[in-house]
Amino acid sequence: MSRIAYVNGAYVRSDEAGVSINDRGYLFADAVYEVWSVFDGRLADAEGHLNRLDRSLKELQIMQPMTRAALLNVLNEVIRRNRINEGMVYLQISRGVAPRDHVFPSHTPPSLVITARPVDRDAAARKAEAGIRAISAPDIRWGRCDIKTVGLLPNVLAKQAARERGAGEVIFVDQDGYVTEGGSTNVYMVTRDGVVKTRPLNANILPGVTRLNLLPIIHNSDLSLREEAFTLDEAKAAAEVFVTAATSLVLPVVAIDDHRIGTGAPGPVALSLREAYIDQARRTAGS
Amino acid sequence: MSRIAYVNGAYVRSDEAGVSINDRGYLFADAVYEVWSVFDGRLADAEGHLNRLDRSLKELQIMQPMTRAALLNVLNEVIRRNRINEGMVYLQISRGVAPRDHVFPSHTPPSLVITARPVDRDAAARKAEAGIRAISAPDIRWGRCDIKTVGLLPNVLAKQAARERGAGEVIFVDQDGYVTEGGSTNVYMVTRDGVVKTRPLNANILPGVTRLNLLPIIHNSDLSLREEAFTLDEAKAAAEVFVTAATSLVLPVVAIDDHRIGTGAPGPVALSLREAYIDQARRTAGS
Repeated sequence: MSRIAYVNGAYVRSDEAGVSINDRGYLFADAVYEVWSVFDGRLADAEGHLNRLDRSLKELQIMQPMTRAALLNVLNEVIRRNRINEGMVYLQISRGVAPRDHVFPSHTPPSLVITARPVDRDAAARKAEAGIRAISAPDIRWGRCDIKTVGLLPNVLAKQAARERGAGEVIFVDQDGYVTEGGSTNVYMVTRDGVVKTRPLNANILPGVTRLNLLPIIHNSDLSLREEAFTLDEAKAAAEVFVTAATSLVLPVVAIDDHRIGTGAPGPVALSLREAYIDQARRTAGS
Repeated sequence: MSRIAYVNGAYVRSDEAGVSINDRGYLFADAVYEVWSVFDGRLADAEGHLNRLDRSLKELQIMQPMTRAALLNVLNEVIRRNRINEGMVYLQISRGVAPRDHVFPSHTPPSLVITARPVDRDAAARKAEAGIRAISAPDIRWGRCDIKTVGLLPNVLAKQAARERGAGEVIFVDQDGYVTEGGSTNVYMVTRDGVVKTRPLNANILPGVTRLNLLPIIHNSDLSLREEAFTLDEAKAAAEVFVTAATSLVLPVVAIDDHRIGTGAPGPVALSLREAYIDQARRTAGS
């Protein structure tokens, strides 16, 4: 079955769907995006992603393509038309189509593309039970990684380098040796005395929606939570390291740069937080 | 008359030409580009741009879409079909179309888009005779600005900020106060004793083809040339400042951040280099 995409007002076959060669998303990476998990046919953390989308658009002065209610309708219609029960939805908004010129065009409507695809939750669970390996890499990205733009080439190159070394994620490290975030995830470490650390939000990392909704779970658990930067060396010496994102949810990291983390197997904190997060996300999906 | 674009093997109306919503240029800014000036219907600095294109593709491990000879044929055919005498040609190559995943897809052909448009040389000459104003801005771009990728959002935002302040270009300044380059140009200053300075090439600036072909002209003139970094303050105190790019050629900067440069009018060095560069480019175009 071919998938269905929503593209600028129409539902079309995904493999035939196109955007203009003069779309500023194509010419300038002048576009933002969001990714939702879908549980039981419903959007997980719907509001959190829509709030972040609003923020990204506002930071870049890109117009809202439609009201939030209308956008939710389209998102749900894309889920329905693709018969997604367990899966993910991808949304991209660009500044629209205009003759190539760096400065903003005037009176140009933004472009909106939405796609969806199923996710094999059993395979994802098996991946989490095995844990993933990570590599580290210098964070050479731009200074506004808090905006969720499609300018992802540095992430692409770093995640490709990870893949070539048999790893599933890259952990970016700033010039002072501190972990910023992963190639497409936020990063956490668990100290040997049970403190969960993750970097506070600033212009260098994305304000993860999974992070946003996981932190209260940690706060309400027996664990201590510190929003505090940590170095790559601290992470390597940690009891556990894990990453979060809308698609990978909570994923244990069992090695960084061939250095074993903790026992070298997924730890109890990461696995229990994964379960708690999925329970909460599934329970609150669509609301 | 609608313009004609070359898109993945076909010549199509530019305003109807599209690329897939799953083109990695659209999803990840996983694409590179080149811009040529066209003089008398012929490509200026053809080889220099093709050499830089080869380098960009190699750095990103994107396949060549076709041989250099075939590419030159298509470039010239786009010029011919659009009846461009004085103008510019734009070329973009992305890693191709694949389901969204950061890591490189395997066996995916790259996408190739080529467009062209006329340039009003008289208007451009008047602009050069008036000079442009510039603003300065912190250089927050990524660490590989030597690769000519479409990840141009930082440039877009900075050039928009310039526009909003009545300026035509932004001059990026690194953390140590040194000028890196312009939003879409290389930057030069002329000292009060006639030394032309421009930053040496490194990972933080684009190896401009106009720069490449202008430096020998400076070298063979009465001027002294130093490839040496200079600060924003030095630039503000300079006798002249100018910028170069394939589209703007050589353009005098008469003010930075409302600070007048030299006499506040285009200087003799910039204007004579503009003339010499255009003469050379026109003479060698298409060869």
